[in-house]
Amino acid sequence: MGRGAAGRLSFDEDSIICGHIRSIDDADAASYEGLLIPGGYSPDKLRADDRFVNFVKDFDVTGRPLAAVCHGPQLLLAAELQRGRTLTAWPTVQGDLRQAGAEVKDEAVVVDDNWITSRKPDDLEAFSAKFLEELGELEARGEWHPTEIDSAPGP
Amino acid sequence: MGRGAAGRLSFDEDSIICGHIRSIDDADAASYEGLLIPGGYSPDKLRADDRFVNFVKDFDVTGRPLAAVCHGPQLLLAAELQRGRTLTAWPTVQGDLRQAGAEVKDEAVVVDDNWITSRKPDDLEAFSAKFLEELGELEARGEWHPTEIDSAPGP
Repeated sequence: MGRGAAGRLSFDEDSIICGHIRSIDDADAASYEGLLIPGGYSPDKLRADDRFVNFVKDFDVTGRPLAAVCHGPQLLLAAELQRGRTLTAWPTVQGDLRQAGAEVKDEAVVVDDNWITSRKPDDLEAFSAKFLEELGELEARGEWHPTEIDSAPGP
Repeated sequence: MGRGAAGRLSFDEDSIICGHIRSIDDADAASYEGLLIPGGYSPDKLRADDRFVNFVKDFDVTGRPLAAVCHGPQLLLAAELQRGRTLTAWPTVQGDLRQAGAEVKDEAVVVDDNWITSRKPDDLEAFSAKFLEELGELEARGEWHPTEIDSAPGP
């Protein structure tokens, strides 16, 4: 979700192909099947900009898989989506979420409706597996709308 | 508040002399006249360690000037001291505090009882002046106990 020109990322054969890199100004939340918010200090920079906070709000409305790890849930907090929800996060962020009305579990992966959250790098394998599983279920339900990926050239 | 050996810092003639650098393990909150928590990403690292969180709690009980700027108030939040208090912080931290029961003002310096808080580097001059003013009032009330500074050699 940066300012890069529209383009296409392709990793090895076993990896997900990301159809486009596009500016947040051109990104329509409803056209994505999943949202994964990684950690580090990036989430605190992203949430300083309402465009990213609003994207998260708009995406959550779709009910599609929304994954956040480490400091990623800071964006859910900035979007004021956490009250009454169950999730986990980086240890220091857990207290922020709990005091702001979320139910916080100190577990490797926490699933609550469309949310998949994890705490730290050690959780990443289980976190990624769960996110892919939820995307697979979306597809199995016939709710996968791969508009973006179809529009990209094949491998 | 690091792991450095006990020592003494001295700046120019117009600056404050810090009596000691000591490990958090040897620091007794009651022996300090003031606490200033700077910003950046350091507060998020400090609050991952209960010793720093407990130091802040213990210091706040003394009622002496407690100043925090930018991300510094994350330590007040981790110490669960913010509910019902009025303060400010770095813009992204303001929402965390507000949703966790604090009254947040978007002002350069906010004073609430013994707390002095500011938002960002641009506020630092007013922030520092207010902190020094509060320390001066502490001294004027005869509540200054410069144990630490007296034990250091003179300039």
